[in-house]
Amino acid sequence: MDRRPIICEFLGTALLVLMGVGAAVLAGAWIGNLGVALAFGFALLALAYSLGPISGCHVNPAVTLGFLLAKRIDVRTAVSYWVAQFLGGIAGAALVFWLAKNVPGLRTHGKMGSNGWGARSEVHIDMGGAFLAEVLLTFLLVFVVLSATHKLALTGFAGLPIGFSLAVIHLIGIPLTGTSVNPARSLGPAIFAGGAALSQLWLFIVAPLVGGAIAAGAHMLTHPPAPNAVAADQA
Amino acid sequence: MDRRPIICEFLGTALLVLMGVGAAVLAGAWIGNLGVALAFGFALLALAYSLGPISGCHVNPAVTLGFLLAKRIDVRTAVSYWVAQFLGGIAGAALVFWLAKNVPGLRTHGKMGSNGWGARSEVHIDMGGAFLAEVLLTFLLVFVVLSATHKLALTGFAGLPIGFSLAVIHLIGIPLTGTSVNPARSLGPAIFAGGAALSQLWLFIVAPLVGGAIAAGAHMLTHPPAPNAVAADQA
Amino acid sequence: MDRRPIICEFLGTALLVLMGVGAAVLAGAWIGNLGVALAFGFALLALAYSLGPISGCHVNPAVTLGFLLAKRIDVRTAVSYWVAQFLGGIAGAALVFWLAKNVPGLRTHGKMGSNGWGARSEVHIDMGGAFLAEVLLTFLLVFVVLSATHKLALTGFAGLPIGFSLAVIHLIGIPLTGTSVNPARSLGPAIFAGGAALSQLWLFIVAPLVGGAIAAGAHMLTHPPAPNAVAADQA
Amino acid sequence: MDRRPIICEFLGTALLVLMGVGAAVLAGAWIGNLGVALAFGFALLALAYSLGPISGCHVNPAVTLGFLLAKRIDVRTAVSYWVAQFLGGIAGAALVFWLAKNVPGLRTHGKMGSNGWGARSEVHIDMGGAFLAEVLLTFLLVFVVLSATHKLALTGFAGLPIGFSLAVIHLIGIPLTGTSVNPARSLGPAIFAGGAALSQLWLFIVAPLVGGAIAAGAHMLTHPPAPNAVAADQA
Repeated sequence: MDRRPIICEFLGTALLVLMGVGAAVLAGAWIGNLGVALAFGFALLALAYSLGPISGCHVNPAVTLGFLLAKRIDVRTAVSYWVAQFLGGIAGAALVFWLAKNVPGLRTHGKMGSNGWGARSEVHIDMGGAFLAEVLLTFLLVFVVLSATHKLALTGFAGLPIGFSLAVIHLIGIPLTGTSVNPARSLGPAIFAGGAALSQLWLFIVAPLVGGAIAAGAHMLTHPPAPNAVAADQA
Repeated sequence: MDRRPIICEFLGTALLVLMGVGAAVLAGAWIGNLGVALAFGFALLALAYSLGPISGCHVNPAVTLGFLLAKRIDVRTAVSYWVAQFLGGIAGAALVFWLAKNVPGLRTHGKMGSNGWGARSEVHIDMGGAFLAEVLLTFLLVFVVLSATHKLALTGFAGLPIGFSLAVIHLIGIPLTGTSVNPARSLGPAIFAGGAALSQLWLFIVAPLVGGAIAAGAHMLTHPPAPNAVAADQA
Repeated sequence: MDRRPIICEFLGTALLVLMGVGAAVLAGAWIGNLGVALAFGFALLALAYSLGPISGCHVNPAVTLGFLLAKRIDVRTAVSYWVAQFLGGIAGAALVFWLAKNVPGLRTHGKMGSNGWGARSEVHIDMGGAFLAEVLLTFLLVFVVLSATHKLALTGFAGLPIGFSLAVIHLIGIPLTGTSVNPARSLGPAIFAGGAALSQLWLFIVAPLVGGAIAAGAHMLTHPPAPNAVAADQA
Repeated sequence: MDRRPIICEFLGTALLVLMGVGAAVLAGAWIGNLGVALAFGFALLALAYSLGPISGCHVNPAVTLGFLLAKRIDVRTAVSYWVAQFLGGIAGAALVFWLAKNVPGLRTHGKMGSNGWGARSEVHIDMGGAFLAEVLLTFLLVFVVLSATHKLALTGFAGLPIGFSLAVIHLIGIPLTGTSVNPARSLGPAIFAGGAALSQLWLFIVAPLVGGAIAAGAHMLTHPPAPNAVAADQA
């Protein structure tokens, strides 16, 4: 089994969390929600072009679930990607935590970029609303990833809609839940934040996976079958 | 008749309204007009690369009118697209409405992202000014869509100018009318907002169609004939 | 002589002024310098993909001068482009003026998006500084346009660096001079603003042309000769 | 030895500093950290498409070190690029200094866009934190540049992830250190700012080179060998 794709998924998820969550924790007071949304989107765009030819650059368990349900990767690949992504998310959050400790002037809030609802949401969205928001926003992301890398789409462009869709997802979702749409992005910060971040973590694992599964169905309804190999998706 | 393109137009219009109008209603207080404009543009860019190869990703009755007048689709396709787009716009607005109900802290204004003039415009633009603005802004969008998907243009790039032109259109238009340039984007929110939003709705259906028709004429004046099939526009 | 390219230069310059100057005059109070800079950049990006295959989408007399000095267009084409661009700039400014008259709530300042120095600059830059700024900023634009459309560059990508370079140019230049880098963009608003805008207009015609000429020299120093035909630049 | 690539590296580094540092010094009060981050990213994107086919558009000694360690350029080319980049950075800073002298209304702070830690950091990051931040942020940039220009990646797209990764790097790094990730970008402003900027300069030369070296290792771990010639990287 080629280890390169798995290393890519670990490294890519770590870098996505470092840049996206890092922007929120370290620079959010300067760049606002708009800047944090662009940080997530631009980081994913850059990773898509760097890792896409090797692993497909899922860097998100909900995306990997979508590829599995659309029959574009096998179970063994999916499981190895999931492990790499969750470990990568923890590593990325650790780097953000390490950096934040060296910043005496940081206006901390103890959230460490973790996701939440109720009192932990800027707009106090309730649990049902948070679940609905994460399903809908993840639906968009996974539908775009599956469709823009479909064999009917032109090779090479996929990184653009993928990156910009993650940006728009964060433009809407940050005041609602902080925006997960990615269980591996949520796990790491929740571990370092602890407390309520951990007790609410389940929603940010389940809802994105539900959204990704529905997206796979919608994708197969709108696109003809395309059993690409993983590495060929964006290569 | 292949149902995939029609499903794509329904789904795409729903997602455009969900992300664009959703950004305005749910996150506008955090991201400002600049963020809402990027939300509309980035969402359309992502959809263009996801749905373009199947339906052309019009997701806008004024765009479909432009393709019809430029003789690049037939009447039957146009009518089926229009029905799908208006239903999609209502579905997208319903999702925004559903989400908004779960947000107790939302700073609502009852507009639900609907378009308007006079007291319902941030700058109190009058009716004539609103009509002129919508004609001019829709002209740009439809001219760009027709020209960037013309056979002389390079396959694959069209999603970029289309998405970025919708962003710049919203940068200018939000303080004027809230920016329609898309009758299907205006219908859904007007239904949920009711009242004056509904009585002003006609302008945001008529003016974009006028702008799209003029754009088709300008496109044919500047570009040689190109009777592409629909599915080939961006595929 | 084919009239399509000349119509494109007229229409494109009008649309660039409508969207860029329009954003500053009609929406500047909402979107700030950042939003106005993106409006200019995104508009040029969209136009490059729409008009590039027909006319090369110069929409700027300094760009046309660069192509002429780099021996990539002939004098007759250059002169016809210049006439079309200046007329287009006036038409675009007229549309902005017409729109602005319909907006009672507009926080006007009488500048109509015209360029200036001294008391007419946000930072009170002096005349020499304004000249230097316009030469340097136009140098970047014309160098990028000539190089990104050079035969060594890959067909189709040119619209991206061209659009994004105009955005970064405005990010820096708006507080200095309002940013011209385009004599045709400066003429129209100066006519409608009148007074000091007209008496300072000469600088925003001369300095961009000087910057464009130097850029042509730098381009020929760094790139091998490439006597492309106009229509092939971006087609 | 062809002089064109060396001139490109000089000119490109000068323009990157002029636009990026110039945005911070001349327009930072208007466009904020978000605008400055976009200025750096958009400028590099534009340069990548203009100079990439000639020199590879490193315009950064840490990037050149990465190419050298990945065995994609030879030592002689690397040394000539380094000299050109440092001289270009000084030239760019001189242009910013020249412009700033003509702006009486500039809200100066004497930093001239130089990098720093402790009292010279917006968040008072300590020296260790600054070193860590510069290593991590440069790692992302050099990993993206090496991977997006690798022979497995599609020709032509590389400028997009490279430009957008520099933007996200600045979104995070400006409050921390002002963001170097590029020794040549740091040298010039430090010379013009003097004092503590010069005594802290070593970190912004060493840390980016360390980050670039680690990135070359990670790149070779995840990507198969690709001994491209320099000029072919993005051509």
